[in-house]
Amino acid sequence: MTRIHNFSAGPATLPLEVLETAAQELVDYQGNGLSVMEMSHRSSAYEAIIKQTERDIRTLANIPEDYAVLFLQGGATLQFSMVPMNLSVKGKADFLITGHWAQKAAQEAQKYTDARVIASSEDLQFTAIPTFSAQDFRNDADYVHICENNTIYGTQFHALPDTGKVPLVADQSSCIFSKPLDIARYGLIYTGAQKNIGPAGLTLVIIRKDLIRKDLPEATPLLLRYDTHLGSDSMYNTPPTYAIYITGLVVRWLLDNGGLEAARARNEKKAALLYKTLDESRLFRGTADRGSRSLMNVTFLTGDEQKDADFIKMAAKRGIQGIKGYRTVGGMRASLYNALPYEAVEALCEAMKDFEREQPC
Amino acid sequence: MTRIHNFSAGPATLPLEVLETAAQELVDYQGNGLSVMEMSHRSSAYEAIIKQTERDIRTLANIPEDYAVLFLQGGATLQFSMVPMNLSVKGKADFLITGHWAQKAAQEAQKYTDARVIASSEDLQFTAIPTFSAQDFRNDADYVHICENNTIYGTQFHALPDTGKVPLVADQSSCIFSKPLDIARYGLIYTGAQKNIGPAGLTLVIIRKDLIRKDLPEATPLLLRYDTHLGSDSMYNTPPTYAIYITGLVVRWLLDNGGLEAARARNEKKAALLYKTLDESRLFRGTADRGSRSLMNVTFLTGDEQKDADFIKMAAKRGIQGIKGYRTVGGMRASLYNALPYEAVEALCEAMKDFEREQPC
Repeated sequence: MTRIHNFSAGPATLPLEVLETAAQELVDYQGNGLSVMEMSHRSSAYEAIIKQTERDIRTLANIPEDYAVLFLQGGATLQFSMVPMNLSVKGKADFLITGHWAQKAAQEAQKYTDARVIASSEDLQFTAIPTFSAQDFRNDADYVHICENNTIYGTQFHALPDTGKVPLVADQSSCIFSKPLDIARYGLIYTGAQKNIGPAGLTLVIIRKDLIRKDLPEATPLLLRYDTHLGSDSMYNTPPTYAIYITGLVVRWLLDNGGLEAARARNEKKAALLYKTLDESRLFRGTADRGSRSLMNVTFLTGDEQKDADFIKMAAKRGIQGIKGYRTVGGMRASLYNALPYEAVEALCEAMKDFEREQPC
Repeated sequence: MTRIHNFSAGPATLPLEVLETAAQELVDYQGNGLSVMEMSHRSSAYEAIIKQTERDIRTLANIPEDYAVLFLQGGATLQFSMVPMNLSVKGKADFLITGHWAQKAAQEAQKYTDARVIASSEDLQFTAIPTFSAQDFRNDADYVHICENNTIYGTQFHALPDTGKVPLVADQSSCIFSKPLDIARYGLIYTGAQKNIGPAGLTLVIIRKDLIRKDLPEATPLLLRYDTHLGSDSMYNTPPTYAIYITGLVVRWLLDNGGLEAARARNEKKAALLYKTLDESRLFRGTADRGSRSLMNVTFLTGDEQKDADFIKMAAKRGIQGIKGYRTVGGMRASLYNALPYEAVEALCEAMKDFEREQPC
């Protein structure tokens, strides 16, 4: 079997070892005589899996007991609603707008709170993280929301905003567990699993427990209340059991491979190679501002749509897939998530150089 | 490998052939060089999977184009909120209360509409479907809601209520695709996949398209609007791609094995054997009223908690698992979903007879 070089922005590549373990255990999980997919979520065999996954996540990212780790559904998009529905007390929330998803989050929040845009880089076509200062935030806001890594535009916060006592809420969908996490800086982190840590269908929420309220408006849907999930260990209703199991395998793989420091080193090495190739190229150029470049999603183009298309086609012949840019942006995007091997980036850079060489002078 | 006899109420047993196919394709899907879990939901390879799954569901259950087939998340519990949030126009909904989940659905609906209980069998400890007549329903209600099969109590509607022009909404979580479906009788069907048709993490909604409204209250969460999902072919955000793939394999398995008529025949044969064993036993007795007995979940007990526990222990030694009754009800429950082989029911009945024989006279 030849594995492709999978640069997909999500769902995305998973560690080969994880897939092999999953394949081997699929029909019969460790001699239990059934698949993980077939286990009652209340069986002792499954409870061991979900508890171990939570423990491993806490170990991996150094998450203390005053934060809850919740296994939910609905993706980051459902969090766009849940965050304001659950965190609004004073009815004010501040947003930094760094791209499409940050915008969507602010628009949805506007239904439930006074969602104010503090800074935006829309005028720069989101090629950079906008500038702002700590004084720009309202000190009576319920929270400040950021999209920490912007999958579409290839930008990332390299320093977190100083929000003082106001909790910081971060959409980490495309950067979760790609480097060490200073959880104390956050009130709430949410992420779909399908980019860095697992398959689609699982949403991970890490939330400081004192932010979980019980006195929510009556009309809040039961399953959209964090307290519903906290009080039932993410088992109020049937959780996405198999997606949790696979995520558990990925987290274990991260632990077995040196934890988040080592993950950062691997991810930095991959990104460095690709950005260097871009910076040295006379054909390709990165679209993100240097100071805002993402470790996870590298966006680039030739400036000629036909050449971009030709390159994508040429790369596909070499098993390089998923590099087409987001449909509203065009160009190319290479996602370098945790499970992407260094060799895949080497293959991509090789293809870029070869393509450049083959251009008419 | 020895497969257990898995009577779990859900997540539940899946066809062995499906698991074997999934295991074989897990690392490399049909020579594509990646797992289904790793595919972008917008890739042509994945689009082929989700489109084929929808087509196969339509073929299997004879669902015409004026009904939408939506692949959602959040389980039946999220539908308890979504149904009233989306279907309330006049602000009235009628409920038949046949158990715990029907009650939960009515309680949640009360937040959004005037949810009236038309009939309840709570006074019978939910051992039967309550009696009611067509005149009991309000003809200006937005819908009538039933839980068509009651997993916990082992009861099932054997005739659908005549609701006239008022749409019937059915929670089919534990009976979907267990027998032929007369879709014209329903306005909306919802189900978690994890009992009869797949793994946990996928919610299937089949809804008559004219019931999907755009003029919903402003505060309706974007992802809780059916029109969001209809307008994007269940791809507004990343769907639970792998759960959909497995469900597609199960639906194909049902088609390959004679469709829903054949599924009904198999399910009736299994249920008949177990109910006959119960009716002939002097130790065990079924708890559901004969006229309301479920084809899917058979609830029974000895009347002696210690004996129930002893039987569950003895059966476990024979590889019979998942027969402990729901925690609030006790006794035993055997779930006979589509994928449960006849041989499993034979093994259970054999165990029951042996256990009975071993009792002191």
